[in-house]
Order: sequence, then structure tokens, then C-alpha cells
Amino acid sequence: MRIGVLTGGGDCPGLNAVIRAVVRKAERHYGDSVVGFHDGYRGLLDNDWTELDIERCRGILPRGGTILGTSRIQPYTFHDGVERVRMTMSELGVDALVAIGGEGSLGAARDLHDDGIPIVGVPKTIDNDIDATEMTFGFDTAVQIATDAIDRLHTTAESHDRVMVVEVMGRHAGHIAIRSGLAGGASLTLIPEHPFDIEAVCESILRRHQRGKRYATIVVVAEGARPLAGTLEMPTPELDRFGHERLGGIAQVVAGEIERRTGYETRVTILGHIQRGGTPTSFDRVLASRYGVAAIDAIHEGAFGQMVALSSDQIVRVPLSEATGRLKTVSAELYDAASQFFS
Amino acid sequence: MRIGVLTGGGDCPGLNAVIRAVVRKAERHYGDSVVGFHDGYRGLLDNDWTELDIERCRGILPRGGTILGTSRIQPYTFHDGVERVRMTMSELGVDALVAIGGEGSLGAARDLHDDGIPIVGVPKTIDNDIDATEMTFGFDTAVQIATDAIDRLHTTAESHDRVMVVEVMGRHAGHIAIRSGLAGGASLTLIPEHPFDIEAVCESILRRHQRGKRYATIVVVAEGARPLAGTLEMPTPELDRFGHERLGGIAQVVAGEIERRTGYETRVTILGHIQRGGTPTSFDRVLASRYGVAAIDAIHEGAFGQMVALSSDQIVRVPLSEATGRLKTVSAELYDAASQFFS
Amino acid sequence: MRIGVLTGGGDCPGLNAVIRAVVRKAERHYGDSVVGFHDGYRGLLDNDWTELDIERCRGILPRGGTILGTSRIQPYTFHDGVERVRMTMSELGVDALVAIGGEGSLGAARDLHDDGIPIVGVPKTIDNDIDATEMTFGFDTAVQIATDAIDRLHTTAESHDRVMVVEVMGRHAGHIAIRSGLAGGASLTLIPEHPFDIEAVCESILRRHQRGKRYATIVVVAEGARPLAGTLEMPTPELDRFGHERLGGIAQVVAGEIERRTGYETRVTILGHIQRGGTPTSFDRVLASRYGVAAIDAIHEGAFGQMVALSSDQIVRVPLSEATGRLKTVSAELYDAASQFFS
Amino acid sequence: MRIGVLTGGGDCPGLNAVIRAVVRKAERHYGDSVVGFHDGYRGLLDNDWTELDIERCRGILPRGGTILGTSRIQPYTFHDGVERVRMTMSELGVDALVAIGGEGSLGAARDLHDDGIPIVGVPKTIDNDIDATEMTFGFDTAVQIATDAIDRLHTTAESHDRVMVVEVMGRHAGHIAIRSGLAGGASLTLIPEHPFDIEAVCESILRRHQRGKRYATIVVVAEGARPLAGTLEMPTPELDRFGHERLGGIAQVVAGEIERRTGYETRVTILGHIQRGGTPTSFDRVLASRYGVAAIDAIHEGAFGQMVALSSDQIVRVPLSEATGRLKTVSAELYDAASQFFS
Repeated sequence: MRIGVLTGGGDCPGLNAVIRAVVRKAERHYGDSVVGFHDGYRGLLDNDWTELDIERCRGILPRGGTILGTSRIQPYTFHDGVERVRMTMSELGVDALVAIGGEGSLGAARDLHDDGIPIVGVPKTIDNDIDATEMTFGFDTAVQIATDAIDRLHTTAESHDRVMVVEVMGRHAGHIAIRSGLAGGASLTLIPEHPFDIEAVCESILRRHQRGKRYATIVVVAEGARPLAGTLEMPTPELDRFGHERLGGIAQVVAGEIERRTGYETRVTILGHIQRGGTPTSFDRVLASRYGVAAIDAIHEGAFGQMVALSSDQIVRVPLSEATGRLKTVSAELYDAASQFFS
Repeated sequence: MRIGVLTGGGDCPGLNAVIRAVVRKAERHYGDSVVGFHDGYRGLLDNDWTELDIERCRGILPRGGTILGTSRIQPYTFHDGVERVRMTMSELGVDALVAIGGEGSLGAARDLHDDGIPIVGVPKTIDNDIDATEMTFGFDTAVQIATDAIDRLHTTAESHDRVMVVEVMGRHAGHIAIRSGLAGGASLTLIPEHPFDIEAVCESILRRHQRGKRYATIVVVAEGARPLAGTLEMPTPELDRFGHERLGGIAQVVAGEIERRTGYETRVTILGHIQRGGTPTSFDRVLASRYGVAAIDAIHEGAFGQMVALSSDQIVRVPLSEATGRLKTVSAELYDAASQFFS
Repeated sequence: MRIGVLTGGGDCPGLNAVIRAVVRKAERHYGDSVVGFHDGYRGLLDNDWTELDIERCRGILPRGGTILGTSRIQPYTFHDGVERVRMTMSELGVDALVAIGGEGSLGAARDLHDDGIPIVGVPKTIDNDIDATEMTFGFDTAVQIATDAIDRLHTTAESHDRVMVVEVMGRHAGHIAIRSGLAGGASLTLIPEHPFDIEAVCESILRRHQRGKRYATIVVVAEGARPLAGTLEMPTPELDRFGHERLGGIAQVVAGEIERRTGYETRVTILGHIQRGGTPTSFDRVLASRYGVAAIDAIHEGAFGQMVALSSDQIVRVPLSEATGRLKTVSAELYDAASQFFS
Repeated sequence: MRIGVLTGGGDCPGLNAVIRAVVRKAERHYGDSVVGFHDGYRGLLDNDWTELDIERCRGILPRGGTILGTSRIQPYTFHDGVERVRMTMSELGVDALVAIGGEGSLGAARDLHDDGIPIVGVPKTIDNDIDATEMTFGFDTAVQIATDAIDRLHTTAESHDRVMVVEVMGRHAGHIAIRSGLAGGASLTLIPEHPFDIEAVCESILRRHQRGKRYATIVVVAEGARPLAGTLEMPTPELDRFGHERLGGIAQVVAGEIERRTGYETRVTILGHIQRGGTPTSFDRVLASRYGVAAIDAIHEGAFGQMVALSSDQIVRVPLSEATGRLKTVSAELYDAASQFFS
């Protein structure tokens, strides 16, 4: 067979590990050839690709990012998108596709499958908020990077008796925040699932600092955290020229309120893109490699329209139609465990 | 209530995170008091303990090891062991116990429960070979440390065109080896579950090196890996004065054979105890904290004789009687995925 | 003797290593006792202190921050400051002082020495901009943290064909920026010593990106970098309630200009306080320990009014009067070496 | 000009950074072309080389090892060695050479210069034992790796009340041992410069453990450490088939004696090749880059027969004739500072 692979959406540590595993399993086990499309669906639409083989994938396992590039371009925003996908595939003799991506890319994969394109999906979201799989690769790396940063902030917070507000990724769900907050020993973690009461936040900080100097406070804030309705006016978010909200909005608001209400010097750290770059943890490398291998098996077993997923430490398949649309939020058990350590 | 906690068996990153979570949940949520027994069951037998509270546990989350110390001493090796346990508990007014430990400690916990002691278990094994839970804390840290070491060995192996043999932990199961080998991009991984044929090993190394210089070989060997019966004579293992087999035996044998049969310079790295020391990964800190919180809930719900466990990213309970005795080995799927990358 | 020690100014990885070395050398080698003053000179003024001995310093070597706390309070801002210092010392029977701090704290130490107080200095500045010593502890750690972050940003910049602007510390000198930019393979580094021309910056980015996708740009900006006079209007800096300029000002300006002038998506990372927290590198632990030991020797040899310093990998002494007032800027040789790699 | 570059001797983190800097400065600043010889002097003798340019060196800065490969082959072990070097150079039109290497490679460079070959040297030794430079690249990385390992061993030593013996590199000088021992908080460090008395070692361990359980002992041993003459019989060292002494000899002897004489369980960790592989620290990347740039300047200024070196944080030049033959040992000041922390 001849198999095409693409990576769509935001980048994520482990994408290269998936690509390498796809190529290895395809070429060595099945004798397939593999083409890689550049910049996600854009390369598939524009017939922009590169030949991939085992040699080309040498050394990419520990590297972050994706050697194929990525973009947010989707086939269904073009009236002739599906036609162009078919043309590229037939021109290159590509029999089936592996689409590695998040909500958007997997939704497009589902639609392509419905339109008769043989495609399987590999879930990717740094935020770990896809409901159909227990874990996505890249997430563990992001949590580790955030935890390392929180570890570092403890000593400086204590030495100066300061409040530190750390903003981490998580627009719709607080997985990174709740885990890095728990792992890093944060005093408080604010996530989208639980709108916060700024007054309660400030009271707990005051109580904590009154206990003594070593009780400096670290507040972890998911970028999607929001105040309880009506309790705190939020400034209109600043947008960049691509229409994305600038990072740091909520952290700045929270820090400003804390400083104003408690009088404690409050500093903001916005981890931003360092959370999604660089070498993946061993956990993510293993998961990504297993996904890549399993995606090729799925193709050879004709399991099109399916996505590989992790369930009870097993690689399973779920229909792409079930994979998208349902957001996975932080479980009550995990939130309860983490909140035991709120000060 | 008054709750006792102890850590038994080999140490493991995350033990302190469990202790901290036990104390936090008990003291803050339930208003319990907690005593910590020194050196596992020894402290329980000898009435050697320390009072634990939230203040005492401050700062221990990121620290490896166990503030309580640990030992391999078991109550049932003493004819009056159970009696002494009962005496200590009644003397201190301890109502229930949390035993954090591996196969041995959990087996003792099961027997104590059968003898009427109110006890719950928290599984601990760096090797991740307890069947009743999907994941044990400390394991992810060990895999990460081994992966970091393999990452480092690649460049030196390539620069000198050498074979590197790395021995990692895993006496009965190859979980650390197979995952760090996969994550580190090893050329070959030998685990107890799959006895190896040294001739096939050497042939694959020769084939690989003939492809060119960048094809230097890294072989990951679990300490419990063994040759196919009759294919390779193993030296009598060297024992230390405590009867433990010295580390490095199998790696030295494998390296010697490779050097002799292929002529390639072959060097051995034995990671040893650095795999089980030091700060836990964020994954292990989160898992350990959840276990600690759940163990206290189990006690308050009277779920004695049970062990907390991870299943599908949920904390569940399983009877201690099912928790021990069944070894979890590397799954066929994972071994197959990893073996795609064997050279 | 009875020796007092204090840490002043911003915190810095390695402060605890100095304290530990001071105590160890004093107690063990000379049989001295040591008191630690809380929050820099504040504790010395307010008679707020703690007894320090070898046992108390156990385990602090790898920990960032300072167990004594720190502040920017200076004795000479109080009319009776020197008097209060003398009173505290006589009350506690303290014979001599070790002041660990930067420009401000060392200047106060010099003045105290002029007023007859027996004091020696240990230089501390995360920015490495004290002219009288080749290297200050904490600096290597900050450079390493910034380099790690830049390493991570490469893959995400390449995957998305973006410009990344990273702001690092360095208000008056660009040591952290120039070294982390060189070590991290940045495409451009802007430092206070060399005012930048935003037009030239943007042209070089355009040239670079036209070469192809893998040429994504990373710009490292020291917080004190400034445009060439008259070339770019700077917004009035935002001050926090303590009168400090908010971090991120210059990075936001530079990123905004790049995005506007080149059309490339440009993202900002502001490392902030994670650069000065957490465990010190081995380099900083060694340097800090040597400083601590040498400071006690200086006291016992009566070398008051002197500061310990590093010169040609030797610990030497320089008069406090020469230690302050002269800023060490990035050398022409190092800037030239780094600029070879500007794109 | 056309410039040749080679890397000889054992590999070392930072070699690629030197190569990249050589190419960058030569190509961009001077308009030179660069050829890289494979496997040190072997490629120069055998006319085995590759063209190097800026593009080829992209991405190698953070990677350990050397893209050119390395070997211990020396021109003067062949009767026609110098002739072959001349022939290769004239055939390729190479005007001058940069030799990156240690004692052996630099000695050969000195001899080649004496024989009229235009050559400059870049010092490389992971052990930092070349007297003519304050610091060699790769050394800081090795110390950091050893320190990280010692950090990890503390917690496991304390939890089990064990003695841990860690062997680090350093055959002739104890630089890595003394610095990583100091940085890692070792209880004792044995280096070649100070032959040890095993009885004193064991006594100090006994004293230490008698103080309590948290006093577990970590002994760092340089591979070249030796007992005081006549105090301890050393087994004949085991040699591999290349005549190199197997690692771990001295650590095993020391650990065996400690276990036998004190009765404490004693475990050995032999770091081996992970000390010289993997990504360099920022310190080493900066130093290596400066060396590479300075070597090309030296060539263009006709400073043949010279070696670049670090002196007071400046890059200077020293004659190759002075660069070799004098071993740099651990200074009395540093050893004295470190020994303050011996238990």
C-alpha cells in the first residue's frame, strides 16, 4: 500500500514519534511506502508532500514539533476541498490516510471518511480534552514543564514572601492546570470547570500568609479559568492580528486583584509556548509510538473512520464520529484530590 | 480517628507524596491524627514511630525516598508478630493502618486483615509488575531516568561506532526496559518475558553496523533478562553479603558475548540505584497523591482489606487478596510495538 | 568567634549553598558559632535572627532561595541605622558579619566597614554584572534555564513558521541574554549594550524566512534592551505598586513591531521569576560553596572591608570600595562571537 | 581559504558546537570553505572527508558527540604519516587545519606544526586536566550529570540507611569528582591527587551513621583514585580486548572494603559513558562556540602552532608546545573547600 500521513492543528511533543512509528510499521512490517503531507491538510489540498522512509525518520524520536509542519487549514472550508484531496491521492497513488490532529483535524477526517476517503485518526491535543481517549501524547510533557516551573517558583516566592500567579494552557478544560498544580504543590488552582470567587481566593491567601513567611502562595491559573458570573469584571480580551486571544489575560487580572486586595507583591509567570515545544517525556514517546504502530494496523485491517485511543493502558479503536464533539473535563475525583491541598 | 501509616520494601519516588496526601486528607478533611511508623513493619512491631501532621509534611512532595524510612521486615516472620502489631496499635490508640508497599508488604497487609487488623493497601513497585493496578508510582520516574541515560548514550555510541549495553531494573518483568528502550530509541531490548538468542542479537548488530557508522547500537537489558535455554552458559551470580544478586551480571555477560562475537567495542552502563532515587515526575506525584487521598477515604468507608488502584485513569479499590501473587508482564501489544524498532 | 550572616537583594540560586558553607567552615574548622539575620539588613536592624549550625543547614545545598529570607532594606536609609546594627551585634555578641548581596547590599557593607563594623562581602547578582568578580553564582543557573526554554521554542517555531520573542533578565547588562542566545541558537539577541535598529531586525527576519520554513526565528531580548535613539517610540513603562517596571515591556514592543512590519505571527515568552528560582547548577553550587568558605577565612584573617571574588578560577579578595559602582558589561569578544550566529 | 577540521580522542559534549562555530565564522565572516575529516586524524591520513557548510551544521549545536566521528589514530604512529597529511591537504587544497582534541591530538598538532603544517588547536578533555586552559568544554556537562546522579542517590541512601559509592571519570586528576562531590553534597570524595586511607574512610562512615539514620553516606570516587601505598592490596585491573581498564574497578574495591569493615550495606553506581554523551550545558555550548570562532581568527592571523584557551573569562592563545605535557590537578584551595564538607 501507499499511505499518506499529515499533522494538523497546534504542534505537540510526540508528533515526530507518531510519524516515525507510522513509517516504521508501514515500511518494515507491511512493505508499504509512505508520503508525508506538509502543513496538515494544506499539503493534501495543494499536493505538497515529501517521501518518508525509515532513514528519513532517523533521529526524530526525541525531537519536539513535527518534521511535516502543521497548519489549521481544513478541507471543508474550500468548496472543492474533497475533490482536491481525491486528486492528490490519486495522483500520488495514495491508498489511505493517517490524520494526526485535534478536534478540528479529526472532525475533518470523520467527514472525509463519510465522503468515502479511507482514513484513520490519531488524537492529538496538548490539553488532553478529547473524551474518547484516556490520554493524548504531549500532555504529559506539558504537565512536566509546568511542574518544573512551579518547583522553581516556590523558592523565590518563599524568599521574598510573594504571591506568584502562573498561567498554564487549557482553554476549555483544566487538565494541565490541575495536574501541574497538584504535582507542583500549588496553593490554589483555578480551572474553567470551576469558576472562581476572587474574594475567597484573596481570603485564603491572607489566611495562609498570616501563618508565617514560608507560606508564600503559588496560584496556578488555566488560561480558560473564569470568575463566577457577576463577581469580577473582565477586560475585553486583547486579540492578535490572527484573532487569537493574547496569553496572559486571566493571569494578569487575577494577579492585579490579589495585589490590590491583599497588599502582597504579586508576580505573573506565563509559560506560553515552552509548554508545547521540546523533547517529549518518555511517557509521551511511548504513547505516540504505540499510536503510530496501531494506526497502520488499523489501515491494514480496513478500520477506516476509526481513531486509535488509549483505554486501560491498551490501544483500542473508537469511531471518529464519537471521538469529536465531547469535551473531556477534569474528573470530580481528581479535582477533589487536588483541592485537598488548596490552602 | 487515629491512623497509622508505613512504607515497606525498596524505596521509590513518590512515597513521600503518598504520605503527605494521607496526612492532608486525614487531618484536614476528617480531623484525624496520623502516626508514621519507622522502617516499614519494623516500626509497627517495635513501637517506633513519629507523629505526622500537615506542617511536618511541608516540602516533602518533590523529594524522593521516604521520610519514614523503609525495610523488608515482615510481621509474619515473627511468631508473635501479629500480637506485637496489636499491642502497638492499642498502645497508640491507632484505629486503622495504611500500608504502602509491594508484593511482600501487601501480602502481609492481606494476612493482617485476615487476622482482624483494619488495614488498607497502597501498591508500590518501581517495576510496575503488580497485576491489580494499571500503574504504580515511581515507575514513570524510573523509565524517564533510564530514557534520559539512553538519550545521552546515543551520541557517544555514534561518535565511536560502539555498542552500548544498558542494564535497567526489572527482575521479573521488563516494563522499565521495554518502555525506556522504546522511548530512548534502543536498537534492541532484552526482557525476562522473551528469552533471547545471543546469536540472533549479534547478527542483528553486525547487519546494523554494516549499514554505516551512524548505526551504532544500544542494547537495553532488563536485569532479569535470560538467554534461551541451552544457548548460553550463565556464570553463577555473585551475591552480596545480604544474599542479593549483584547488579550488572546479565549486562556484563551480554556485552562480553557481543564483543567476542562481533568484534565491536562494547561498553556497559548499569544505572542501578539512580533509577529509584530523586524527585518524582509530575505523573508519579499526581498518582501518588491520588492514592494517598483515596486510601483515607477507603478507611473512612470501612473498606478494609482493600488496595487502591488505577483503572482507566480512575482510582478504584481491589481486594488485597487479588492484589498479590499475580505478576503483570509486558503486554503482547506493547512488546510488538517496541519490537518494530528493533534493528 | 561569633559570626553573623545575612542575604540581601533579589534571591538567587546558590544563596543557601553560601550559608551552608559559611556555617560549616566557621563551626567545624574554627569552632565559631553563627547567627543568621532574617530578610537581609532588616534582621540586623531589628534584631531578628536565628541560630545556625551544621544540622540546621542539612539538605539546603540543592535548594534555591534563601532560608534566611531577603529584602531590599538598607541600614543607611535610617538615621539610626548604624547604631541599630551596632546594638544588635553587641547584644548578640556578634564579632563580624558576612553580607551576601548585590550592588546595594555590598555598598552598604562598604559603608558599614567605613563606620568601623567588621564585615566581609560575598557578591551576588543573577545578572553577573559586578565588575570585580569574573562570575557570580546563580548566573549560570539563570542562563541554563533560559537556554532550556529556547531549546524548547525551536521546535514549535519551526512547526508553525513563527517568530518567537523571549525576554530574559538583564536590566543594565546583557550577560544572560547573550549567553543563552548563543547557547540556545537564537537568530538574534538584543542587549542593553547595543541599542537595536528595529528595521534591521525585521529585515533580517524577512531574509531568514525567505530561505525556507525551517528558518523560523527566535529573538532573545534582555529586559534592558533599548532601540537606537529616535528610531522607535517606547510606551511609558507600566509600573507595579512598588514602582518596579512590569516585565515584558520591551518584548511586547519588539514582538508587536515584528508582527506589524513582517507579517509573521510572533509570540512572546517572558521567563520572569523561573530564571531565579529552583535548584542551582553544579557550577553555581561549587562557586557558592567556595565563596562561603573563603568568606570565613577572610574574617579570621581580619580582611574586613573586602569581598571574595573569582579570578582565573581562583578565589581572591578585592576591596568592597572597588567592588561596587562599576558595571561589568558584555565583552566585545563574546558579543562578536555571539553575533556570528545572528541570521 | 580552505580550512580542514577534525575531532580526535574520546568524545565530549560540545564538539559539534565547536565545529558549527568554525564553519560559521569561516564561511560567513571570511568567505572560507571548510572540509571536515572523519574520525580524527584517520580521515586526514586516509583522505576521508566531507564538505561542511552552515546548512550542514544546522541543528547540531545542542547535540552531543561529533558529526565527524572520532578515533585515537595518530599521524606519527605511521612512518609516512606526515607525508599522507601533506598529500591529503594538497589534494583538497586545504590551507590550514583546526585540530580539536586532548593531550594526544594536541601533541600531534604540535609535531605537525613543527613539521611545517599550518595548524591551530582547540583543547578538549572531559577531565579538564589540560594545564594551559582554565576550562575545557564538556567538563561542566560531565560534572552536572554526575551531580544529578548524586542528588538522586541521597534519597535512596537515606531511606535504606545505606552507603553508596559512585564512580565518576578522572583517571589522572579528580576535577569531576571533587566538583560533583562538592555540588552533590557527598560525604567523602576520593581523588588521584590524595591517596586514601581505607581505614580512615571506614571510621568516618561509622562515626557518621552513629549520628542517626539521615546520615547515610555517599562516597564519590574518581576512577583514578588509589589507596595510600601499602594500605590496601588492589586486584590486577581487568582489561578489555583493546587494553583499556574496565570501569568500576576502584569503586568495587572501595565498596567491598566498606561493606566488610563497617557492616553497612554498600551499593555501587558506575556512571560510565553517560557522563560524556548527550546535550551540553549552556556553559559548554558557549565556551565551545567561542573556541571555534577564535580558532578561525587565529588561522587568519597566522597564529599557527597555537591553541585557543580560556583565561579570566577571555579567549587567549597559548603555544601548543606549552599546552601539552603538564597535567592540571585539583587546586589546594578547591580541595580544601570541598573537604570542609567531608563527614
